[in-house]
This record gives sequence, structure tokens and C-alpha cells, in this order.
Amino acid sequence: MNLSYREMVELASTGLRSAGVSQKAASETAQFLALAELDGLASHGLARVSQYAGHAKQGRIELTSKITVRSFKASCALVDAGDGLAFPALRAATDLSVNLASKTGIGLVAVTNSHHFGVAGHFAEAAARAGYISLLLGNTPAAMPMVGGSKAIFGTNPLAAAFPITNADPLVIDMSLSAVARGKLLVAAKKGESIPEGWALTSEGKPTRNPQEGLKGLMVPMGGDKGALLALIIELLVVGLSGSRFSYEADSFFDAKGNRPRIGQLLITIDPGLAGSKIFANKMQGFLKTLSSDAGIRLPGQRRFKLRKVGIKEGVNIPDVVIQEIQAGIRQSWNG
Amino acid sequence: MNLSYREMVELASTGLRSAGVSQKAASETAQFLALAELDGLASHGLARVSQYAGHAKQGRIELTSKITVRSFKASCALVDAGDGLAFPALRAATDLSVNLASKTGIGLVAVTNSHHFGVAGHFAEAAARAGYISLLLGNTPAAMPMVGGSKAIFGTNPLAAAFPITNADPLVIDMSLSAVARGKLLVAAKKGESIPEGWALTSEGKPTRNPQEGLKGLMVPMGGDKGALLALIIELLVVGLSGSRFSYEADSFFDAKGNRPRIGQLLITIDPGLAGSKIFANKMQGFLKTLSSDAGIRLPGQRRFKLRKVGIKEGVNIPDVVIQEIQAGIRQSWNG
Repeated sequence: MNLSYREMVELASTGLRSAGVSQKAASETAQFLALAELDGLASHGLARVSQYAGHAKQGRIELTSKITVRSFKASCALVDAGDGLAFPALRAATDLSVNLASKTGIGLVAVTNSHHFGVAGHFAEAAARAGYISLLLGNTPAAMPMVGGSKAIFGTNPLAAAFPITNADPLVIDMSLSAVARGKLLVAAKKGESIPEGWALTSEGKPTRNPQEGLKGLMVPMGGDKGALLALIIELLVVGLSGSRFSYEADSFFDAKGNRPRIGQLLITIDPGLAGSKIFANKMQGFLKTLSSDAGIRLPGQRRFKLRKVGIKEGVNIPDVVIQEIQAGIRQSWNG
Repeated sequence: MNLSYREMVELASTGLRSAGVSQKAASETAQFLALAELDGLASHGLARVSQYAGHAKQGRIELTSKITVRSFKASCALVDAGDGLAFPALRAATDLSVNLASKTGIGLVAVTNSHHFGVAGHFAEAAARAGYISLLLGNTPAAMPMVGGSKAIFGTNPLAAAFPITNADPLVIDMSLSAVARGKLLVAAKKGESIPEGWALTSEGKPTRNPQEGLKGLMVPMGGDKGALLALIIELLVVGLSGSRFSYEADSFFDAKGNRPRIGQLLITIDPGLAGSKIFANKMQGFLKTLSSDAGIRLPGQRRFKLRKVGIKEGVNIPDVVIQEIQAGIRQSWNG
């Protein structure tokens, strides 16, 4: 069914509130899920409402969480998400890191006791629209092995970066560190197809072309050993600085039952004026001009902004199954 | 021939000075090249003396460079390497970033007008031995394409990270963003062997299994498109914040002739005390304990520390061809 942005926010918010989530957390979360739908990123859109609602009903998140902030020296702060849904904490952390960067040139904000934070690029984008360079790292429930290892140690540990461009949408890079998204295994499993080598491992850490085995097993890091080392860097930065749980201590997001994940995120926000007031903007212009001379190149993040403009005008087609699932959750809470 | 650390430093320093490099720059550079030999990283060791000397003779570096430092807000600084050899500037930048991090929790130092900076992990290690988390990024002469592109846009843009461990050597991660090092193509070319797909591209951007074509062409980023996007992030951070040249503006290091590369590096140094005084150290201990339960896992950076201990005692075997090349350069300058 085609839904407007307002209708998507309303549906998502109602779905979350019916599971007991506070109005503030439900409303802020719903806005980011609807934004993901506008951006064509359905895997982080309204399909998450039922997942988050399931976590709320099973006690995996605090329904009315309190966000607390503690400063550390002039450039750093720790945001405690209080086991709630992550979006309000990430929004606060983004604002705070921009504020720190405006004062001291760079702001480092760690978020602890957090949860699934959706499209990382949305927060990086917000900092870039305020005129700052933004880096955002997070850990997630374990899915990938360490170099030489056969157990799940790291999450797919996503990262995002955003760079402001004068009078234009920022450049936004958004990725996770697995070779492919877990969703691709789900699709292959549904179709009964095999997957290429280099996507997944069995639960014993052996290569597999069977998507079912891969879903029960491990994801392969992008670029093999180098990708595992990047996941290591993100893991130690996030957990060491936020005090959050390690990826291997957090239960999967895909099950309703499990522990409070208490994972972490890290935001680094940078004033681009370091080398001089116009240098950064001029370098960006020169770079984009150079890229434009190579016809095949597509700039990261531009697709989502294009889709967003269309989506705001025309709405987004949400699969009936997603809407029905949210509505079933709402009805259940009315009756229960 | 087996050389002690002192003999390696002496030989490298004499080789650089014979090409006109100032005593200070020659001596500091020689120490890092000898350290690379101790660490078993010969590709960044004494073989670089003739390369750097060639650059010195061709005017690609300033022989007696002046390092200047400009502060930016409370947490940032710009170090201008003055077109000299990079090592003295990187050493100064490391000290400075540690100092900034000790005051404000995080220090960001950009290095501009720089050159080849050897083993990135050596500087990250120094910051970690001072008790800080360190990240170091650099751009290098272009060798890899952007996503969808067919021209060399990015260097293999290396990154290093180091994490302090209580009463032990730090964890040091050191990598470049190409799928494999260019040296592997050189080895295959010498042996007349073909290379696996996914290592290199022709100069038209087509996959190749011919190492000669690959050497004239492009390196494939680790993990394909995701690796190219990581190279993009490093490129924009380094160039945008330091004002250095883009990778595609710097001539190859492998030729004696060419422009002054004027590439850049970026150091981010972080006080690990953000979440509390003992949290970081405790998290590191817990993580290492978890890894130790998976027998196949090797910690990054530990091999070099093991070799370093042996090398300090017993010296390092340096190939005669490397020694002869340096000595030939020295004789040439005596006679010239």
C-alpha cells in the first residue's frame, strides 16, 4: 500500500507505542524508520517496527528509558542510552558531537547501553548538513569470526561517513563490514538457490554455498582478513570507549527473546576548517570535478536523496505483509 | 649480510646524507627504516634508502625541510612537512596529537606536503605506548579506481590503529586498502606466473591475470566496492583536512623522477579514559581472554614485536643487493 511520510510515521509510532514504548522514543524512532523507507532502504524501514515491538514485549529494551550524558575533558562525552531504543540517544549524541566539534575542532561521543541504530548514515548526514565531517561506528550482535578463528566474535560492525558539500547534499557513505548483507542469504534460502563462496561460513567456520547453513553459521568479512581487522578496530574503539557489551555478548536482533543487547556506537565529528577556511570546500569541488570525468562513477549517497525527494511527493509503497504485521501487533495489544 | 640495528641505521643514514638529505632528516628516517627491518617488514626497510635517495637527487623532496605547526582550536593542529622526508614530521605530529589528547581527550593532527611515511603502525604504536588509542590514515600515489570507475583515483591509502594493553605490547593493526600488496605482482612477474583474478586490473580497468598488465594498470581494492569506499573516506579526510594533494595528483614513488608528491596523513589520538578510568583496560583484558579460547587466532602486531626482540639481539640479514645498491649510491656521490 502507498503511504505518505506522515502515514508511515503514524503507523510505526502507533506500532511501537502499542508494545509499551514511550511516546517520545516511539515518535523519534518512527521518524527514522520512515526516513529509511523514503530513502529506499526498506531493510531498515517499517519492517523493523515488529522487531523492535517484539524486543519491547520481551523486556529486551527499557520502555521509558532515560538518556544521561557525562562529559569527559573538553572534546568528549559519554551518552548512556539507558537500554532504550537507540534513535533518541543517537540524535542527542549527534547534536552533542557537533557542539563539541564547533568548540574544539573535533568531538568524540560514545553511546553505551544502546540497541539497533538503523541507518548509520542518517546521523552522519545530519552532522554534515550542519557543516561538519562525520564518522559513525557501531558494534552489533556477533556474526563474523576474527582472523584465523571459527567462532562469531564481531558483528557486521557498520560504519558511516559524511562530508559536507557547499550548496548540495552531502556525500554519505554507509556500509557494514560483511562481504554481503545477511538479507541476501535470506533471499537465496527462500528461492532455494545456492550462494557464491565468500559470502558465508558454517557454524564450524567452514566455507559453505548453502544459505541455510550460512544463516545458522557465520558471515564472511568483506575483503577477508583485512575486513576482520577493520571489524576488530571498530569493536575495540566502540566497546573500549563506551564501555558497552562486546558483539559476542549481545544476543541476536533477529529473535524476540534474548538479553538487552547493550551494544555501543561512536561518533567522531570534525570541523572541516583545519587547513584553512576554504580549503576543504575547494578540495571537495576539485574531487567531484575529477570524478565527473569518469562516466561510470556513481557518488555514494546520491541515490537515497533522489528517492527521498520522490518519496516525499508521492509516498512509498510498503508491502502489505509489513503493514499487516504491525497492525496485528496493535490489535493484539488492544485485546490483551 | 647480517647487520645490527646500529649498523643498519648508520648505513641508511649515510646513504640518505650522500644524496644531500640533512643530517636530522637522514638520521630520523634511518631509525624507522632499521626498525622496519627488525620487525620483519623488509618492504619498508633499507630497500627504501635508494628510493628516497633517488627522490632527493631528482628534487622530489626538500633536502633540508622545515617543519611548521599551526594550531586549530583546542584539539587540532596542522603539521607542514615542508616537502621533506615524512618521518620527522610524523614523529612530531604523533607527539603533538598525544599532547592534545591528554588535554582535551582527543587530538587530531593533519600532516601536509608530506612523502612516503613507511610503516604507519610505528607511529600508532608510539602513541599506544604512551597510553593512548591511535588511528593513522594516509593517502598515497593513485593506484585504485573509484566504484564504477576505470581510472586510478585513490592510492592504496593505508591505515593503522593501535590499542594500549596494560603491561604488554600494544595491539597494532596495519594495512593498506588494496586486495594484495603491489609486491605480490612484482614477485609473480619475476617468476613468469599468472595472478589470481581480483588482484589487479589493466590500465583500461578490465580484470587481468597477467602481473605485467596489472603493474601498468590498477590494483583492486580489498573487498571490491566497499574497499573503494573506504579509500574514498580516507582520501577525503586526509586531503580535505590537511590540504595535501589528492592521490591522483602525486606521481608514483616507484620512479626517481616525478613531482613532489605532497600527499597527506591524519592522526587521531584518543584518551582511553572516556567511559571511566579502568573500563578500557578491563575491556581489553576481557577481549584478549575471549580470543585466546579460539586456538587459530593470531593477534595482529605480535609477530613484529617477537621478531624485533630477536633482531635487536642477533641483527637482521639484509640482502647483499640492498646493501650494494646503497653503497653504490654513496660511492657515486663521493665521485660526483
